[in-house]
Amino acid sequence: MRYELYYWAGIQGRGEFVRLALEDIGAEYVDAAREPGGEARMLRLLDGELVQHPPFAPPFLKSGNLLVAQTANILAYLGAHHGLAPDDEAGRLWAHQLQLTIADLVDEVHDTHHPIASSLYYEDQHQEARARAADFLKSRAPKYLGYFEKVLARNKAGDGHLVGAQLTYPDLSLFQVVAGLRYAFPHAMAQLEPKHPRVVSVHDRVVARPRIAAYVASPRRIAFNQHGIFRHYQELDSKD
Amino acid sequence: MRYELYYWAGIQGRGEFVRLALEDIGAEYVDAAREPGGEARMLRLLDGELVQHPPFAPPFLKSGNLLVAQTANILAYLGAHHGLAPDDEAGRLWAHQLQLTIADLVDEVHDTHHPIASSLYYEDQHQEARARAADFLKSRAPKYLGYFEKVLARNKAGDGHLVGAQLTYPDLSLFQVVAGLRYAFPHAMAQLEPKHPRVVSVHDRVVARPRIAAYVASPRRIAFNQHGIFRHYQELDSKD
Repeated sequence: MRYELYYWAGIQGRGEFVRLALEDIGAEYVDAAREPGGEARMLRLLDGELVQHPPFAPPFLKSGNLLVAQTANILAYLGAHHGLAPDDEAGRLWAHQLQLTIADLVDEVHDTHHPIASSLYYEDQHQEARARAADFLKSRAPKYLGYFEKVLARNKAGDGHLVGAQLTYPDLSLFQVVAGLRYAFPHAMAQLEPKHPRVVSVHDRVVARPRIAAYVASPRRIAFNQHGIFRHYQELDSKD
Repeated sequence: MRYELYYWAGIQGRGEFVRLALEDIGAEYVDAAREPGGEARMLRLLDGELVQHPPFAPPFLKSGNLLVAQTANILAYLGAHHGLAPDDEAGRLWAHQLQLTIADLVDEVHDTHHPIASSLYYEDQHQEARARAADFLKSRAPKYLGYFEKVLARNKAGDGHLVGAQLTYPDLSLFQVVAGLRYAFPHAMAQLEPKHPRVVSVHDRVVARPRIAAYVASPRRIAFNQHGIFRHYQELDSKD
C-alpha cells in the first residue's frame, strides 16, 4: 500500500505528526503536495465536487480509495495497521486520549502567535500574542508537560513510553512537541526541561530510532520556520 | 453497565456532547459531579496518585475499571458499543473525523470569549474577544457550517444525517453546536441559518428524537449560561 500524504508543502505543521508515523513504520508514501502539481491536487481533494468524504483541512491521508483527515484520526488509523497502537480496546483508547491531549496543546501553541485570527498577520496581533504567549508559558505549557511527565511516571510497564512497554504514535508526537517548543521558546524550555526529565527522554529515545534519525537528517524533514505552528518570536519567549 | 460521567456540575460545556450520547442510547448513567460529594470525587480521579490513566481534564467517563477522557474519544467508545457509529472501519474513521472537526469548532467558539487566557475573566480580555468573535462570525463559523452543509449534501444515503443512513454521534454533536451558536450569537445565526438548511434540519431531527426531547425538557439538561463554552455577550454578536 503506497500512502499519499497531503499537507502544505513548506511547513512541518500538523502534517509532521503524520510524517513521523509514516517514517517510523518505514511506509512507502509520497508527500503529495511537495510533488509537481501536488498542491493543486490537494486543493481538488479538498474542494472537488466529486469527493464523497471531503476533509475540512489538511493534513489528510489517501490510502487506496480511503481518505482520512484529522491528524489524530490518521494516527489512530496508521497505528492500528502498523503496530503503533495497542491491540486491546483500553490501550487503544488510552493512546488516542493522549494524542488528543497533544492536539489540544498544539492548538494552544498555534494561538500563542495567532490569538485573534489565523487570517491576520502576526504583526497585526503581536500585542495580543505577547499576552497569550506569556499565559501559555506560565500556566499551560507547565500543565501539559507536567501531565505527560506524570503519565510516564505512572506507566507500570516503565517510564520510557507513554503507553505500555513499546513505542506508540503519541510518543512520536511528544518528540515533535518537545522539538517544536525548543524552537519556539528556547529560553522557556531551558527552564522547563529539567523539571520534565521523562518527557525529554522520550524525545531523545524517539530521535535515536534509526528511521527517525535518518528522516530528521534528510531533506524530507522540512526545517522549523516562521510559517508553521511552532514559530520563534523572541518577544514571545520568556525572559526570566 | 452503569456509566459514570464526570464533568463540571454547573455547565453544559464539553460534557454536554457526552450527555447527549448517553441520553440518546438510553444509558444508565450518573452525572457524577452533580451528586453530593461528586466534584471532590472528580478531582480525586483527576489528581489522585493511584489513577493509572489520569485524564488531563473533564469530561471523562468511567465504565467499570475503564476511564476514558477526551470528548471525541468518549463518543467513539460509546458509539462503537451502542450503535451510534458505523461498524466498518471507513465509516468509523469518517464519523470520528467529523467529530474532531466539530471539536475544533467548539475550541474556536470558546476562544471567542477567551482569546488570551482561560485563567482570566472575560472582562479582562473583552476587547480582544471582540476582534476574535468578529473574525469567527465573518470567516470561521461560515466555513464550518458550510463544510457540514456540504457533507450532508454529499451523503449518498441522504442528507438527513452526516454519516450513512442512520444517526451517529456527530449528528448529536451538530445539534448541540447549532443550539449553542443560537444561544451565543442569535443575530449572526439568524443570518447564517437560511444558508445552511441541512445543518438546521439535523438539529431539528435530533431534538425530535423522543429520548433527546425528553432530556432537553428535563432538569438533567443544564441551561446554557455564562460559564460554559457557548456564552452570550451582546457585544460579540454581529450587528448587521
